[in-house]
Amino acid sequence: MDISDLIPPIPPLDDAAMRAARDRQQTLTKPLGSLGHLETLSIHLAGITATPRPRFAHKAVVIMSADHGVATESVSAYPQEVTAQMVQNFLRRGAAINVLARMVAARVLIVDIGVASDIPPADGLLNRKIAYGTANMAKGAAMTPDQASQAIRTGIEVVAQEATRGLDMLALGDMGIGNTTAAAAIACALMGAAPADIVGRGTGVGETRLAHKIATVTQTLALHRPASTDALEVLATVGGLEIGGLVGLILGAAARRIPVVVDGFVTTAAAMLAVTLAPQVKPYLIASHRSQEQGHAQILAWLGLPPLFDYAMRLGEGSGAVLAMHTLEAAARLLDEMATFTEAGVSTDL
Amino acid sequence: MDISDLIPPIPPLDDAAMRAARDRQQTLTKPLGSLGHLETLSIHLAGITATPRPRFAHKAVVIMSADHGVATESVSAYPQEVTAQMVQNFLRRGAAINVLARMVAARVLIVDIGVASDIPPADGLLNRKIAYGTANMAKGAAMTPDQASQAIRTGIEVVAQEATRGLDMLALGDMGIGNTTAAAAIACALMGAAPADIVGRGTGVGETRLAHKIATVTQTLALHRPASTDALEVLATVGGLEIGGLVGLILGAAARRIPVVVDGFVTTAAAMLAVTLAPQVKPYLIASHRSQEQGHAQILAWLGLPPLFDYAMRLGEGSGAVLAMHTLEAAARLLDEMATFTEAGVSTDL
Repeated sequence: MDISDLIPPIPPLDDAAMRAARDRQQTLTKPLGSLGHLETLSIHLAGITATPRPRFAHKAVVIMSADHGVATESVSAYPQEVTAQMVQNFLRRGAAINVLARMVAARVLIVDIGVASDIPPADGLLNRKIAYGTANMAKGAAMTPDQASQAIRTGIEVVAQEATRGLDMLALGDMGIGNTTAAAAIACALMGAAPADIVGRGTGVGETRLAHKIATVTQTLALHRPASTDALEVLATVGGLEIGGLVGLILGAAARRIPVVVDGFVTTAAAMLAVTLAPQVKPYLIASHRSQEQGHAQILAWLGLPPLFDYAMRLGEGSGAVLAMHTLEAAARLLDEMATFTEAGVSTDL
Repeated sequence: MDISDLIPPIPPLDDAAMRAARDRQQTLTKPLGSLGHLETLSIHLAGITATPRPRFAHKAVVIMSADHGVATESVSAYPQEVTAQMVQNFLRRGAAINVLARMVAARVLIVDIGVASDIPPADGLLNRKIAYGTANMAKGAAMTPDQASQAIRTGIEVVAQEATRGLDMLALGDMGIGNTTAAAAIACALMGAAPADIVGRGTGVGETRLAHKIATVTQTLALHRPASTDALEVLATVGGLEIGGLVGLILGAAARRIPVVVDGFVTTAAAMLAVTLAPQVKPYLIASHRSQEQGHAQILAWLGLPPLFDYAMRLGEGSGAVLAMHTLEAAARLLDEMATFTEAGVSTDL
C-alpha cells in the first residue's frame, strides 16, 4: 500500500482569521502585547480553526493504549499487567488524567488499540484492538507494516467518529508499559541521536535498569536500522500500536482544523512520526509541557515546538496536555471576551 | 506607632498535614514523583492550610487600585485617568482579569485605596480610599508614614472581611498607572540594585521614556535614601497606596493560613516589603509567573520564589496569578481525588 493514500488533505493555517485575531488583539483593553504568549496562541488558534474568535466547547483527550513486547526486557518499573489495570482506573475515573480532564470539561476516551488482555466493554472505552501487544522489538519487528498502517488509520477514524460528537480541541494521551522505550527508539531513529542521550527513566527505573534500557534500544536499532525518512518503517520496526494510533489522531485532527495538544515523551515521538509523514501537520501541533524525561527537550527542539511550561512531570496519559488546555482556552477566551478600548471608554494615548 | 503592632501572628507551615499529604502522594496511581511540581505544590498547600487534603472552593483576586504622583513624570504609556477607567472596566467585567477569574471561578474584588478620582459605588468595588493618589516621589515622600501604615492595615482588614464570605486562596492584583516605577524603586531600595538593572518598560514605553523612567527612579532614591531594612520607610517614601494594601493582604492572608498567589512586578515588590516586615510570611507566598518586565526574575530570585511558568506576560491586574490558580487547584485536586493503588487494584512492583 502506498503510505500517501493514508494521509488526508491538510490545509495551511488560515491567514484571514489570523489577521482578524491579530487586529482585534490591538483593540483590547491592555497594553499592546502585554498578554505575551497568550496573544500569539490566540492568533495561532484562529489560524488553525479558520475562525477569528475561536471557542472550544468540545474538548477531548484520547488515550491510545497498547502493550509492548519489549516490556519483557525489564525496561519498566511496572509489570505489563499495569497497562490494562490503568485502563480500568481511567474508566473508573480514578487516574490523574480524569481529575485534570474534569477541571477543563474535556471528555476522556480510551482506545484499546493493542492491550495484551481483553478489557470488558465500558463507557468511554473504544475497542479497536489490532493485536495483543507488539512483538519484542529487540528480537524482531514490533509489528508488520500492515499493522502499522492500520494503527494510523485507526487514529484517523477515531477523530472522524469523535468529530460527529463535537470535537474542537484534542489532547494526545498514551498508556502502555514499555512505551518510553519504543518512543526513545523512534526518536533516535528519526534524529540519528545516540540512545544514551535520549533514553530516560520512564516510570522511574534506577541506574542499572536505565543502562539496560539504553542497551536494549541500541541493540534494537542495530537490528532494524530503519531509514530516518521512512516513518512507517520506523513505526513498524521500533514503534508501538498506540504510537501509530497517535500518529493517526494527529493526521485526522489536522485535516479537520482541530488543534492538537501534544503531551510528553511518547506523544511527542508520535508527533515526530506524523511530521515525517506529512510536514504540513506541524502548524496544528501545540506543545504543552517539557517533561522530565531525558530527551524530551531535544525532541521538542527537533520539532521546533516550544513548550508552554515545565512542571517536571513524567506521567503521560495526556496529563500535561490537558493541563495546558486551560491556558489555550484562556488565550481564546481573552481574545473573544475582553472589551475593546472603545467599548470600555479607556484612553489609548497620552 | 510601632510597626510590629500592625503585624498579626503568623504560624509556621503545618508539618503533620504536609507529612500526611506526602504519604498519600506515595499511594496514588502514578509512578512516584511523576506529577513533579504538582506533587510538591500539593504538599505545600497542605502545609499552608494545615489540611491533609485541601480543597479551594472560595478563591478571590483582590485588585488594589491607586494612583501615583510620579505619573506626572511621563513614566507610563498611558495617562493617569486610565487607572479609574480600568477600574470601571473591571467592574463591567471587560478586562483580562475578569475573563481569567471566570475560568477558575474566582471572585474579583476591586479596592479603591487611592485612585485619583471618585468612583461611583458598584458591586465588587470597595471604597477604602486613603488619598487621591500619592505625591510625586521624585519631589518628596510618596505618602506619610501614617498613610503607609493605614494602607497596610487596610489590606489586613480586607482579608478579614473577605474571610467572612469564605476565602481559601487569594490572588494579588494591582492597578495603578505609574506603579511599575514605584515597584522598581522599592525593589532597588530593598535589594540595593541599580535602577538600570530593574526598571522595565511597564505598559510598554519606548527607549527615550525608559531612560527617563530610570533617571526618575535614580533621582527618587537619591532624594530619600530609605533604609533597606525599614519596609515602612521604603513604602512611605517610594511606594504606592495599592502596594501598601497588597502588603496588608499578604500579612492578613498568611495569618489566616490562606495561600497567597503572587502575580507580576508590582505584587512581587509588595511581597518583598511583606517579607522584610515579617519573614515568617514567606512560606505562604506562591509565585505564579515570571513576567516580561525587566527585573522581575531578579526580585523573584531575591525572594527565593520559583515561578510556575513564563508566558512573557506584563499586564498586572492579577492576570498571571489567576491563571496559576488552575495549576494550584489541579495540584490539590489530584491529591484529593486520585485513586490509590489499592483502591484501583493496580500492581505496584515487578
